[in-house]
Amino acid sequence: MDLSADELKAAFGLRLREARHAAGLSQYQLAQAAGLHWSYISSVERGQRNISLLNIRRLAHALGIQPGDLV
Amino acid sequence: MDLSADELKAAFGLRLREARHAAGLSQYQLAQAAGLHWSYISSVERGQRNISLLNIRRLAHALGIQPGDLV
Repeated sequence: MDLSADELKAAFGLRLREARHAAGLSQYQLAQAAGLHWSYISSVERGQRNISLLNIRRLAHALGIQPGDLV
Repeated sequence: MDLSADELKAAFGLRLREARHAAGLSQYQLAQAAGLHWSYISSVERGQRNISLLNIRRLAHALGIQPGDLV
């Protein structure tokens, strides 16, 4: 694989944070919209989670973007 | 979210199978290339797995496609 596991998780977290900022949402607001806890959003953005398909879809749906924009 | 969890996992499985066939690989060959077990590939294709970011990236890398093509 091209990047290490940690680099992939960090890159996902960065894309999530950028998409959240572009949508003008706080971590709490995104969590509410996606049906997730804000602390989970925070840990994903800090590159600490090997996030699952369903949560990727929940976040993309809440942000109004394509899941491919995050992975 | 637009689709149910089961529908999302099934749709991912279908896209993975189509991409694998397009690449002319067996489940065993894809598993070898992605560093995963063939039975895991089989369960993902049958829509039974909430696959993680890292495994999505491993599979896309092994298939030579973008991860967004699978999610």
